[in-house]
Parts: sequence; C-alpha cells; structure tokens
Amino acid sequence: MNLPNALTYSHTLLTECVGPGDTVVDATVGQGYDTIFLANLVGKSGHVIGFDIQQAALDETQQQLTLTGLGAQVDLHATGHENVGTLLAPNDRIAAAVFNLGYLPGGDKSVITRPATTLTAVKALLPHLPRGGRIILVVYAGHPGGPTERDAVIDFCQKLPQKIYQVLRYGFINQIHTPPFLLAIERR
Amino acid sequence: MNLPNALTYSHTLLTECVGPGDTVVDATVGQGYDTIFLANLVGKSGHVIGFDIQQAALDETQQQLTLTGLGAQVDLHATGHENVGTLLAPNDRIAAAVFNLGYLPGGDKSVITRPATTLTAVKALLPHLPRGGRIILVVYAGHPGGPTERDAVIDFCQKLPQKIYQVLRYGFINQIHTPPFLLAIERR
Repeated sequence: MNLPNALTYSHTLLTECVGPGDTVVDATVGQGYDTIFLANLVGKSGHVIGFDIQQAALDETQQQLTLTGLGAQVDLHATGHENVGTLLAPNDRIAAAVFNLGYLPGGDKSVITRPATTLTAVKALLPHLPRGGRIILVVYAGHPGGPTERDAVIDFCQKLPQKIYQVLRYGFINQIHTPPFLLAIERR
Repeated sequence: MNLPNALTYSHTLLTECVGPGDTVVDATVGQGYDTIFLANLVGKSGHVIGFDIQQAALDETQQQLTLTGLGAQVDLHATGHENVGTLLAPNDRIAAAVFNLGYLPGGDKSVITRPATTLTAVKALLPHLPRGGRIILVVYAGHPGGPTERDAVIDFCQKLPQKIYQVLRYGFINQIHTPPFLLAIERR
C-alpha cells in the first residue's frame, strides 16, 4: 500500500462523509470522474448536482451516466459553480462538494477555474454543510493563473474560524513538477 | 468520522506499513505512546528500538511496557537518535520509524529535538527502509527552536529524490496555535 496521491485521497475523504440518499455537489464536472464516483456513493435515493461551463464535457459525462445507469440521480448544469447558491434552498444539506481546480485535461487549457468564482462557490456551499460535511478542493497550480488561485484559496481557508471548521492540507512536497494537493474543509 | 489530527494520522500510516515480526524505530520515546503502539503492531516476533536522552522518560515507558507484557520486543536506549546507525547492520530492514519533534510534554521544555541530530537520524535510517517503508515525523514548531527545526526538516524532505521517495505533508492550516503537522517519507 503506497501513500495515495491527492486525487485518490479525495475519494477516500468523500467516501467517509457521503452515503446513500445524500445530496452532493461536483463543482467541476469535467470528464465526469468525480460525478460518477459521487453518483455511486449517493445511490438512487441521492442527488448529485454538477457544474461545468464546457458543454462538451457535460455531454460526454451525461452519456457515461446514461450508459452506467446513474443518470437518474444526477443533474448537470451548464453554468459556473459560482451559481450554486441559486439552486439551493436555505435548509438544503450538502454532505460534500468537490472541486478540481485548474483546466480540463485534454480540453482548452485557457479555460481555467478562477479565484473569484471558486471562492464564491465555496462561500455559498459552507452554510449547507452538516457536521462532518466536507468541501474538497484538489488544487492544480502548474498552469498560468494556477499559483494565484492556489494562494487565494489557501488564504481563504487559513482564515476560516477553527471553532466551526477544520481545514486539512494534504500533498506531496518533493516532486519537481507541481503535483496537485488537496484542501479539505470540514464542518465540525 | 472527523478528519484525524497529525498524531492520530501518524498511527494510521504506521498501521499500514508495520506488521508482526517487523523491526521498527521509535526515535523519540518520550511518554512511550508510540513505543507501546509499535510494540503491539510488531508483536512478540518483532522488535522496537527506542531512543530518548531523558532517562526518566525511559524508566516510565519501561514500566508501562512491563505492565502491559510488551517488554520482550522492545529495547530502549538512553542515547540520542542520531546514534541509530551504530545499532543497525547494513542489511537490517526498518519497516518504519517515528519521530515526535519538539519537547517532551510535561517534561523539561529546554530539552528539544534539534535539526542536526534529527536529520542525522533520518539519513541513517533511509537506507534501511524497504519498499513501502516509512519514516514519520510529527513536527511541533510552537516552541523556541521549533521553526528552525521545522524549516530544516521540510527543506531536507523537499530535496529527497522523487524516484526513490515520496514525501507527504499532512496537517491543519486554519488553527491559531501552531498545531503539529506530519511528514511521511515513503520508500517507493
């Protein structure tokens, strides 16, 4: 058993806090890797709300969801995750949300997540976390604009009140190419 | 289930790489918390080699080991962990080693681990790690001298060749008082 990388560990952290019937958010659908993972965790009685601004990515993910029989519990939205707040009622509980920050691998590398919209989405989600609920951010910073977003997200997380949230940082520190690292915000 | 702190997570990482019959090192015995944990993991056929420069701490740990029937598989040494190399034969395999950097809680706060001796010990242990073997450092940096040791250990870890080792950093980033964080060096 080797130490898992940030992406693998994100799934471990999601598995620990998401179960059948839960509502969860995939803030960056992309290739649908997390969407499908979450759809399996919440099951037929649960709900995955997905966001992506790239229609092609959503189409491909929707096709995979249909093929795997997971389409019923997933709603994909062709809009930025900064609009997540408009889709939630005040009392909606979000067991977990996941963000993959950066660009879509294999897609247009100029389409990247950005600090303002990322943090708008995180702030909108925080009031919906139950105790033990988690917002997971897998942070890629090797691309233009990446370091700025990384620093903004870390700065925001470091200032979250420790009586209400704990924020974990997990990542490898001896790799030459900037590997992704993980931030996990957990409601106490 | 809440996100575990660095100390708790260190035991998870040790459990994953240590089993019955293994030889392991507790580089900072202190109150014997890790020593007893490791003695249980390696069992009667294994071997825990412990170091501490404070005889009182060793005496107390030895007493606990005797009371819990774990004394047979543990050897405690009243010397600094920088001497670990002198106790190992070239082919000895160390499944894991654990360091708690800082001072002994409840003890003399002027007796602290130091960068030079800590890194001497880590360097002496590295050649003895099998694939999947881990050196775990729980780093406290809230005391005088702590930041210097923290920086030296991080700098050393960041430079370890990524083809041979991966180094994980794990810790909470939104706590006002300097909480310990964890570094795990794993032999690939």
